[in-house]
Amino acid sequence: MPTAQEKGKRARVDDAEEEGGEPIDAALLVSIEKLQEVQEEIEKVNEEASNKVLEVELKYNDIRRPVYVRRNEVIQKIPDFWLTTFLSHPILGELLTEEDQEIFKHLESIDVEESEDIKSICSITLTFSANPYFEDKKLTKTYSISDDGRISVKATSIKWKDGMDIVNGKTCMKNGDKRLLVDESFFTWFSDKKNSRLTNGEMDEVADIIKEDVWPNPLKFFNNEFEGEFEQEDEDE
Amino acid sequence: MPTAQEKGKRARVDDAEEEGGEPIDAALLVSIEKLQEVQEEIEKVNEEASNKVLEVELKYNDIRRPVYVRRNEVIQKIPDFWLTTFLSHPILGELLTEEDQEIFKHLESIDVEESEDIKSICSITLTFSANPYFEDKKLTKTYSISDDGRISVKATSIKWKDGMDIVNGKTCMKNGDKRLLVDESFFTWFSDKKNSRLTNGEMDEVADIIKEDVWPNPLKFFNNEFEGEFEQEDEDE
Ligand SMILES: [Ca+2]
Ligand SMILES: [Ca+2]
Ligand SMILES: [Mg+2]
Ligand SMILES: [Mg+2]
Repeated sequence: MPTAQEKGKRARVDDAEEEGGEPIDAALLVSIEKLQEVQEEIEKVNEEASNKVLEVELKYNDIRRPVYVRRNEVIQKIPDFWLTTFLSHPILGELLTEEDQEIFKHLESIDVEESEDIKSICSITLTFSANPYFEDKKLTKTYSISDDGRISVKATSIKWKDGMDIVNGKTCMKNGDKRLLVDESFFTWFSDKKNSRLTNGEMDEVADIIKEDVWPNPLKFFNNEFEGEFEQEDEDE
Repeated sequence: MPTAQEKGKRARVDDAEEEGGEPIDAALLVSIEKLQEVQEEIEKVNEEASNKVLEVELKYNDIRRPVYVRRNEVIQKIPDFWLTTFLSHPILGELLTEEDQEIFKHLESIDVEESEDIKSICSITLTFSANPYFEDKKLTKTYSISDDGRISVKATSIKWKDGMDIVNGKTCMKNGDKRLLVDESFFTWFSDKKNSRLTNGEMDEVADIIKEDVWPNPLKFFNNEFEGEFEQEDEDE
């Protein structure tokens, strides 16, 4: 006896034939249904695999964490480490205006924290000493995945001191979408919560460079400045 | 007592001062060396993390393997499954010439196998029934990582039957680098071992689509063709 479901299908096939469409036979539909079942099986395996990979990544984030804390302690003994590192980076170097560079002289440390869960991708925190530019000690920009799968961005609203707001003040040339990276202040990027330079489901280029390029190995860029001297030292040892 | 290494550094600092360069003090060099050590520690953790992630991925490749074999058995009962799937894909559909479509009617199965080790990224195998176009039963294209980190490509040299070579024969317009995707035969892509459309360290677009887009869920594209009918069926159930 055909099941109700099978009857439904036969009816559909008949319909298709009556309507002059191409007939789809029941065996074909059964195969497609089987295929759908196998496909669901594959998706379950994929999901389990993603979860296991995420588990490994979170574990190693935890292992890296105290090493990064120690690294920050060492970095703080090196004057203008992050300023030098940013200036030595081919893209970030272009981003820092002269005013940014003055502000970066008060940058005590940078911290990039990866998500503890899937919802938050990463946060970038800049810690400053007391400075003539803004009241904040910490500026944090956070990238999270919202429920619709898009990235949402939060950033500390910088409390600029009187006449020091280089983002919204006279010194910043705004030109809509035509603004080029090279014309922008680092703090324009920092304050941009619209994530306008975003390709779907990804962080913007500057955040990506900081997270993936600079943070894992800042010394690679910092050392550009001292390249000749370090080479010389290698010969000495 | 200063160590020999420290003395070397002091000498360097003196040199720098004498040469009129900016003086680098010994404490700074010690900090940079410490930073280098911490950096090496981070790199070790990163390497361990990559290895663990790879281990997980290989494990789940093994779990997926028999499911994909079962899926291929189901797919073989669906006439022209891969032809329909490719034609329903926005990019692959453009790639298939009329001759390719004739050849694809003889395509019995597709298999995408991911690497068992790090050196080989993936291989794409097409299995054909006896056909008027070429002698081969299996055509395989393999992407591997060579020692210099670049991707190298191997592909079966297709044994075309007399007058049937659509890649090197009269039907293929070659125009150097100006060839567009839409003007190419699928078998031109298949036979291209130079991997000319390659962005550094990645597979070409067509291989990437087959591996990452079509292979994990071909039904997504196949079903485009039957969309209206499947929606109707959903209402029935
Ligand atoms: Ca720091
Ligand atoms: Ca198949
Ligand atoms: Mg500093
Ligand atoms: Mg087929």
